[in-house]
Amino acid sequence: MVEISLNTGVRKEVPAGTPFMALLEELPEEMRRDAVAVKVNGRIFDLRQAVTDGGEVEIVTGGSEEALDILGHSTAHLMALAVMELFGDVKFAIGPSIEDGFYYDFLLERTFTPEDVAAIEKRMRTLRDEGNLEFVREDMPKDEAIKLFTGLGQTFKVELLNDLEAETVSIYRLGGFTDLCSGPHVPDIKMVRAFKLLSTAGAYWRGDEKREMLQRIYGTAFFSEEDLSKDLTRREEAKRRDHRILGPQLGLFDIKEEAGGGLVFWYPKGYILREIIETYWKAEHRKAGYDVILTPHIARSELWKASGHYEYYRENMYIIQGEGQELVLKPMNCPAHILIYKSKLHSYRDLPVRYAELGTVYRNERSGTLHGLLRVRGFTQDDAHIFCTPEQLLEEVESCFEFAHQLLTSFGFDNYKVELSVHDPDQMEKYAGTEEDWQKAEASLLAAIEKRDIPFRKIIGEAVFYGPKIDLKLIDAIGRGWQATTIQFDFNLPRRFDIVYVTSEGKREYVYMIHRALLGSLERFIGTLTEHYAGEFPMWLAPVQAILLPIGLEHHDYVRSCLEKVRAAGIRAEADLREEKIGYRIREAELQKIPYMLVAGSKEMEEGTFDVRSKARGRLGAKKIDEIIAELVDEIDTKA
Amino acid sequence: MVEISLNTGVRKEVPAGTPFMALLEELPEEMRRDAVAVKVNGRIFDLRQAVTDGGEVEIVTGGSEEALDILGHSTAHLMALAVMELFGDVKFAIGPSIEDGFYYDFLLERTFTPEDVAAIEKRMRTLRDEGNLEFVREDMPKDEAIKLFTGLGQTFKVELLNDLEAETVSIYRLGGFTDLCSGPHVPDIKMVRAFKLLSTAGAYWRGDEKREMLQRIYGTAFFSEEDLSKDLTRREEAKRRDHRILGPQLGLFDIKEEAGGGLVFWYPKGYILREIIETYWKAEHRKAGYDVILTPHIARSELWKASGHYEYYRENMYIIQGEGQELVLKPMNCPAHILIYKSKLHSYRDLPVRYAELGTVYRNERSGTLHGLLRVRGFTQDDAHIFCTPEQLLEEVESCFEFAHQLLTSFGFDNYKVELSVHDPDQMEKYAGTEEDWQKAEASLLAAIEKRDIPFRKIIGEAVFYGPKIDLKLIDAIGRGWQATTIQFDFNLPRRFDIVYVTSEGKREYVYMIHRALLGSLERFIGTLTEHYAGEFPMWLAPVQAILLPIGLEHHDYVRSCLEKVRAAGIRAEADLREEKIGYRIREAELQKIPYMLVAGSKEMEEGTFDVRSKARGRLGAKKIDEIIAELVDEIDTKA
Repeated sequence: MVEISLNTGVRKEVPAGTPFMALLEELPEEMRRDAVAVKVNGRIFDLRQAVTDGGEVEIVTGGSEEALDILGHSTAHLMALAVMELFGDVKFAIGPSIEDGFYYDFLLERTFTPEDVAAIEKRMRTLRDEGNLEFVREDMPKDEAIKLFTGLGQTFKVELLNDLEAETVSIYRLGGFTDLCSGPHVPDIKMVRAFKLLSTAGAYWRGDEKREMLQRIYGTAFFSEEDLSKDLTRREEAKRRDHRILGPQLGLFDIKEEAGGGLVFWYPKGYILREIIETYWKAEHRKAGYDVILTPHIARSELWKASGHYEYYRENMYIIQGEGQELVLKPMNCPAHILIYKSKLHSYRDLPVRYAELGTVYRNERSGTLHGLLRVRGFTQDDAHIFCTPEQLLEEVESCFEFAHQLLTSFGFDNYKVELSVHDPDQMEKYAGTEEDWQKAEASLLAAIEKRDIPFRKIIGEAVFYGPKIDLKLIDAIGRGWQATTIQFDFNLPRRFDIVYVTSEGKREYVYMIHRALLGSLERFIGTLTEHYAGEFPMWLAPVQAILLPIGLEHHDYVRSCLEKVRAAGIRAEADLREEKIGYRIREAELQKIPYMLVAGSKEMEEGTFDVRSKARGRLGAKKIDEIIAELVDEIDTKA
Repeated sequence: MVEISLNTGVRKEVPAGTPFMALLEELPEEMRRDAVAVKVNGRIFDLRQAVTDGGEVEIVTGGSEEALDILGHSTAHLMALAVMELFGDVKFAIGPSIEDGFYYDFLLERTFTPEDVAAIEKRMRTLRDEGNLEFVREDMPKDEAIKLFTGLGQTFKVELLNDLEAETVSIYRLGGFTDLCSGPHVPDIKMVRAFKLLSTAGAYWRGDEKREMLQRIYGTAFFSEEDLSKDLTRREEAKRRDHRILGPQLGLFDIKEEAGGGLVFWYPKGYILREIIETYWKAEHRKAGYDVILTPHIARSELWKASGHYEYYRENMYIIQGEGQELVLKPMNCPAHILIYKSKLHSYRDLPVRYAELGTVYRNERSGTLHGLLRVRGFTQDDAHIFCTPEQLLEEVESCFEFAHQLLTSFGFDNYKVELSVHDPDQMEKYAGTEEDWQKAEASLLAAIEKRDIPFRKIIGEAVFYGPKIDLKLIDAIGRGWQATTIQFDFNLPRRFDIVYVTSEGKREYVYMIHRALLGSLERFIGTLTEHYAGEFPMWLAPVQAILLPIGLEHHDYVRSCLEKVRAAGIRAEADLREEKIGYRIREAELQKIPYMLVAGSKEMEEGTFDVRSKARGRLGAKKIDEIIAELVDEIDTKA
């Protein structure tokens, strides 16, 4: 007998081996219907699984993120069954739920057409409604599972099993489809109420270019049609904002497969945007007491051996055989900053030393993981390293956090999530630095967050081995989260590189070292910005801030002379002097998402005005050119 | 009998085989004494060599650059003889004359001390004055020379001989020293009148880290003591300006061997200087109708195979093995610019397209060739590519040339040398593009130079295979030349990458493509700037423009409030508030070569003034703070 306390308040004793399902029997029908799984000591279980230990049992219901994960994964199994039934000879790879729905990867000869996908979706509904299907879980020894999947011809599953270290594995059956799966799944297939298959894509098995190319079908699933409909609208909205489309369309940036995946080409307008951000970033950093530096993109392997990256990070590093020496294309800027710090002996009076660099780094990411500007192989971190004394710690961390807040809000991100990753005190042996170092560092991170009085999530054991950290995730205009700021301690590198300062007593002590990136990387941040604003950047960031449009040839001279005036005021303006109809040129300027269109015909020319159209505020009517300039300059200066 | 016409006006017939020396016999004693060698059809001969063909014979006299080359090389032989006599068992590597004197590389067990060098110099003088020495030339079959040098134990010479493709080689003897040498040498050892051995250094045999480390002795030689003395003064001056010393000393930049040779670390102040140049450069380029872009540092090998670099430039490229694909760390920016050009189809109406990039490239240069910021492995070209129609050619080239002139003079270089490298019409088969292309391109380059009406050197056959070019060499404050601008046509890449535009008749034609870098590279240019100004940069470039110095603690508040005012005016100012004596702080500011020192004591505080000391103009006396600000801002704005 084990003692269970449900989060509904009920406490009961049941025999070990009772299915969780049975615990719900006394609950009201409504609650029971909504139950998707249970959570015991942080682990999620299927309602079909059996109680083994006592403790708190939390019911996972339809409203939670975890329930959506389970639902998505269950829908993936249903899709796999439908594909199997429709197309016969299919090899199944993996079918996880993801942040944004689910997918399954299949190997089959036929290439899925849109009609196929519609047929799969239809078959899924039929199976759900008429198939009398149920998820059946079975635990079995690994050997037996290998035999089972070998018999089924499911070689990917066999490969996965061979790589597993467990002795016992679980499989799930749904009708004729059997999957290697740790679950859980929804208790009732009818819960797969509202779903849609979204798209197909090619994907390498295990993301490895040298392995089989599979066909992936993406889908999304919800517990209600209303939620699904909202999701589809959100997806439409996200598509409209997709930076991978807007980038080339607005002349901002693009990725060129001829040159290689994950490498960004900055087009003229995108480079202007990037330069504005860089210039602003550097000015703000100098104001905040940082020294801006620049370090080479390559360095001898020895440096990366000293830092430990060569041993622990090697597979992500691009390595070059040079003249009699091996070089590394830098994956991070730290060792270079350390070399500059160490170019002289620092006294406590010199500290804090704060080196900032817009440091372009390259990392050998798998091609399967690349995504537009968000996940790339070459990116520019807005990096800085702070070398300080223990006494300066709190102030430095607080300043970093404040600085991040200031910078992010100035770009229009008022909303972000905070995560604090700290050490696991039970596993102190796996960390660099002393317990005291960690406590001091974590206390300073916590104090910085609490000073701002914002909610945060503290994750014990989530810190990397070299130090605790704060992460900020931006929330964009349509509610999506994007990784940005990291403020991270490092107790490893000061010891590896002997980074010291001379104390007031003349002793040499290790510095406290903080890595931090506020925007994260320029690439990811500009990708995020593009989606946040759907390419309609605020004035101070817009590559072209105003376009002047003469209605006819006879207005060209007027427009030209005004263009000069506008430009002289520091406004990034263009004139469209092509001999196209005004309607056509206005539409083009709209597509280019230029904040202001200034149209001039004979009336405007006589009066020294323009008919002003604001992308954000609509048609503003005729205004004198000087008035327009003053308003635009003000909008730029205030970063409105 | 062959017919000779001397450039003294004399014409005569002599038997083939007559030594050139004999041709001089009728010349006045003075002229004869001054003759060092002769030049026949552009080739230089020893006076001891024999006339073989007829033609124009020009006498090379002591005043010319060529004569100094010959003298330097002859002095190197004399040095080698002295080393042999003093130290016995020596292996001789090579001993050329260089732009700035001469050297010889030796392999011996003993490490040369300063005393050794003094002894060598002394022995050289004795040998010259008392040795009765003469340079004796001997031509012999290669095999025989190999036998000779093998017998002498001169393995480096044997290695050189084995690599030579000639059947006959020449050797020169001077006393007991025999060298493999194509000559020429001075006719009389007494001509080695004024020389000095300057320094010793280590150098790898053939610049190859894996081969023997040799000992090099540098020297300099002139025909008169006066010239030597001038040269030594110039060398002292050059040492004072050495950017490799000033870089770290002024906190500008440094190279760190731990990270690898030829890789520049930009310190805070150096980065400010670089950023000022970059910002100015970008603004001027946008004004001049360029689009500024940014492209990745790595790209797949395929792109470099398409461009031909992989085949012809491979040993200078850093190659990376990526995930299933080979990548190249870009040695140039062209292919990336071409990809951007090709991202859409261009009409003649879109041209010229001008893409500019501060593009950081990496080239695998031999470690022996590296030199501070002048010869590096990683550098940022101020690169641009112009794609235009044949009609636009002349205007584009003229604009480039004008732009270079404007940019270079704005940095204080009023003086430069121009070289025009054109094709050799007799070897048209080795060039890309048509004869017509070349003529058009060369005509436009010539027209651009002639428009400015400045002297230039036209070098036939010096063009690279893909197009003719103009090079500009800056002349610095002490008369040294520094490579800067290149304007270069390319008839190769448009064909390799199919870079076309649509003509007004709707046909596709290859564009004309121009590569150009105006400053050359930021690294080399900043190295040059540092030496040109000896680190005393003009106001607009100075990383720190003014330093405020309170005499005592009681003046700190006054200085702090003025510092804010000065900074608010956009002046890069600092205050030295350390509790050190004012004299000490002034000396430090002087060493840092800060243009303005503003000193305040009680009198200045009362009057709202500072005692102004200008690095360039000395002590300027007390001035009101607002007046100082206005003057400084004016000096900055006018780039005075």
